[in-house]
Amino acid sequence: MKLYTYFRSSAAYRVRIALNLKGIAYDAVPVHLLRNGGEQLGEAYRAINPAALVPALDDGGNIFSQSLAVIEYLEETHPQTPLLPATPAERARVRALALTVAADTHPLGNLRVLKYLTGQLGVSEEVKLDWQQHWLRTGLATLESLLAGDPRTGRYSHGDTPGLADCCLVPQVFGAQRFGVDMAPYPVIMRIHAACEALPAFQQAHPSRQPDAE
Amino acid sequence: MKLYTYFRSSAAYRVRIALNLKGIAYDAVPVHLLRNGGEQLGEAYRAINPAALVPALDDGGNIFSQSLAVIEYLEETHPQTPLLPATPAERARVRALALTVAADTHPLGNLRVLKYLTGQLGVSEEVKLDWQQHWLRTGLATLESLLAGDPRTGRYSHGDTPGLADCCLVPQVFGAQRFGVDMAPYPVIMRIHAACEALPAFQQAHPSRQPDAE
Repeated sequence: MKLYTYFRSSAAYRVRIALNLKGIAYDAVPVHLLRNGGEQLGEAYRAINPAALVPALDDGGNIFSQSLAVIEYLEETHPQTPLLPATPAERARVRALALTVAADTHPLGNLRVLKYLTGQLGVSEEVKLDWQQHWLRTGLATLESLLAGDPRTGRYSHGDTPGLADCCLVPQVFGAQRFGVDMAPYPVIMRIHAACEALPAFQQAHPSRQPDAE
Repeated sequence: MKLYTYFRSSAAYRVRIALNLKGIAYDAVPVHLLRNGGEQLGEAYRAINPAALVPALDDGGNIFSQSLAVIEYLEETHPQTPLLPATPAERARVRALALTVAADTHPLGNLRVLKYLTGQLGVSEEVKLDWQQHWLRTGLATLESLLAGDPRTGRYSHGDTPGLADCCLVPQVFGAQRFGVDMAPYPVIMRIHAACEALPAFQQAHPSRQPDAE
């Protein structure tokens, strides 16, 4: 398999964790989001993923995009080390946790959105940072309440084995810390984050460990 | 089943379509996003869904949130009239189409984001509308290219039966038309939209047909 990735992309980071948890070997193909006017916007990458976003997974010539769809695909094709629990109700809970990050939090701080803020809206770097922190805090507060208020939360987001929700939680914490969000109000998230960071699958997926890390 | 819904919510609209396609009867419980300072933000609703977003589905006392997670739950518990295709590769494609709407397009035009624009950022109504239209056009252009460039697109987004991607496409078109986006650049989306709108499941899920419609 071949993963089109960018070391700091939250969505690519999710898929790297999932691949590592499942023990699937892959070749990383870096796509630099800032160089050459954004390599993801160029014709070469658009031919691979018309959405012009990373990641994209190439499995024998079939291209898959959207991190959560990619992880579900890996789950269905490589069921060993499952990333989703067994019952529909539990699976729905884990998917909702994942979507709280992937749909409600991450898209608001995406590079193209930040560019629109400073470009078309002409906001200052300070106001841009307020925006980033506001949506990070909003998303993290929701995730914290979903985790803290539910007895199904264990050592990880759901029970005592890492899964899809953790693949989303860890990159989101990385992003929040990078932009200076105070993590003290999210003790359950940080406890789970620490448990994940102790595992090689998460360590090896970290942005600082990628071939394109700067 | 009981669906906490708002007639114009794109995410609630998706779940209404899925319930109708599967022939699952449900009671609609309206949550008014604009009245009383936003009923979704009140304690009563937060006790149901801590994310303070609609929809939420109550299935025998178990609460499910996040529209795509809810639809996957319905798919697993009510497999009749499947909304996802049979193979992992096809399922990944349909989920990516759905996420192109639910993660990359819709969250940027959500009510709370628009409030931040006019509140904290103090932008005018005109600049707010530019923002909405920009992200709607960006998302629709991606969806159009994913649909137009793939032979698996049929009468509907994937093949000749309506499914998860259509549950997302139709409400997104409704939102785009509501905010004055010119739909001429998206002929495949509009062809699929017309095919869906011919079906009672989609007609009955339309915002104008809801008990809380204004």
